[in-house]
Amino acid sequence: MPPTDRIRDHAGQGAPTVAAQRTRRRLRADRARQLADLLRHQLLTGSFAAGTLPHESTLATDYRASRNTVRQALDLLRAEGLVERLPGVGTVVVAQKYPHGLDRLMGLAETLREHGHVTNEVRTMGPAPAPVPVAERLHIPPGADVLYIERLRRLNGLPLSLDLTYIPLDIGTALLGADLENTDVFRLLEAVTGQRLGHAEITLEAVNADAHSATVLEAPRGAAVLMLERLTHLADGRPVDLEFIRFRGDRITMSGLLHRSL
Amino acid sequence: MPPTDRIRDHAGQGAPTVAAQRTRRRLRADRARQLADLLRHQLLTGSFAAGTLPHESTLATDYRASRNTVRQALDLLRAEGLVERLPGVGTVVVAQKYPHGLDRLMGLAETLREHGHVTNEVRTMGPAPAPVPVAERLHIPPGADVLYIERLRRLNGLPLSLDLTYIPLDIGTALLGADLENTDVFRLLEAVTGQRLGHAEITLEAVNADAHSATVLEAPRGAAVLMLERLTHLADGRPVDLEFIRFRGDRITMSGLLHRSL
Repeated sequence: MPPTDRIRDHAGQGAPTVAAQRTRRRLRADRARQLADLLRHQLLTGSFAAGTLPHESTLATDYRASRNTVRQALDLLRAEGLVERLPGVGTVVVAQKYPHGLDRLMGLAETLREHGHVTNEVRTMGPAPAPVPVAERLHIPPGADVLYIERLRRLNGLPLSLDLTYIPLDIGTALLGADLENTDVFRLLEAVTGQRLGHAEITLEAVNADAHSATVLEAPRGAAVLMLERLTHLADGRPVDLEFIRFRGDRITMSGLLHRSL
Repeated sequence: MPPTDRIRDHAGQGAPTVAAQRTRRRLRADRARQLADLLRHQLLTGSFAAGTLPHESTLATDYRASRNTVRQALDLLRAEGLVERLPGVGTVVVAQKYPHGLDRLMGLAETLREHGHVTNEVRTMGPAPAPVPVAERLHIPPGADVLYIERLRRLNGLPLSLDLTYIPLDIGTALLGADLENTDVFRLLEAVTGQRLGHAEITLEAVNADAHSATVLEAPRGAAVLMLERLTHLADGRPVDLEFIRFRGDRITMSGLLHRSL
């Protein structure tokens, strides 16, 4: 018996016969989403050890769902690029999302250390006059130079994110000759300033990639992007690093712990 | 002078004449993205008080950018649904994103209190046997009943998120008669159990909305969605609330503070 059979359907109350079919379609789509969300968690956490999902009929039994619902759920995951159907093999996991920590301020190479090697393609780097909103947030006079860096970041060769970075020039100058290809800016900032980073204010958004960003990230146009804006401060409180980061939505998750009381 | 004129362009080094135009196009697209990110921050934080952006020529001067770059940046923000061009008026802010706190575990109505009234359309509610991954995470026997709730959540009438919720039935039963239309599940859980919530493990992703979810959220098909998976525990540590939440990417930002040391 499908789990939703016993569930009261609010929208369906008193629906006339002509609307019954539409209601059934809606309910099946709702159930498919429900199942897809459960399977997504399983595959992102590596529960399907061999990288292959159980057979449709097994999933139908395990989740008390109809074969149609199972197929529709797998279609949703396929549309997200997480699984593929291989003839003679079944449904296999094709995408891996890497967990970026939300609990501690860490650079990409640090947070993904166990998953592989992060390399950075420096697309643009050099001093530029700070636009007013950048100057304000970095506590420097408007028009004073900042170091502007644009990097395409890869994990094991796969594009993960496009990072736009602004750093006050008194600190940034020392980064010009540094090994930015292989080193997080966070580590360089701590080496250059001789102090630890302190905290960062972050804002996360989901946006559709514009055509140019999609091309750079080798993602489809309109692909969902996890956009992170981050203003990082040194331990003494000085803001030193303003970044705008576009993570490919199909390659990164952000995980953390929230507490009810502060 | 455009800020990037003095910036070393890595890709352009030694580019032959035939590739020069492509490089220029790429550079303009890069600059447009750079400007769009700065303007996005301004408009999301309400810096354009009257809801109207400065004239293109003012933006060009302020940001040391060409008019073409400014136009392209505004096009990017328009494609995201954040601004519109009104003839005779200029570029106006049309979308507001609401900040959801990432620092403390809070329900939607709590976190958005100052922005308006949250209402919940209960689409489905009722007991259902827990699928294995739900049972495992909620520490109940597989197949034991859970309360399943599906809600479309609105702020001031506008769809914000679609929430799928699983609650162990010994706690969930008391929610069946509660005012779910106007009350956060978090508040109800604390009222029913007589204890505070403790912590939650969260995972955030950016995904493209499937057709059905997009319809429910009244968003375009493929719209970027901020997907939150959250397992919430009572103060005594018991897991009581597993949720899969799809936030409309154009209506929600998540903001918080990260620290370098734990």
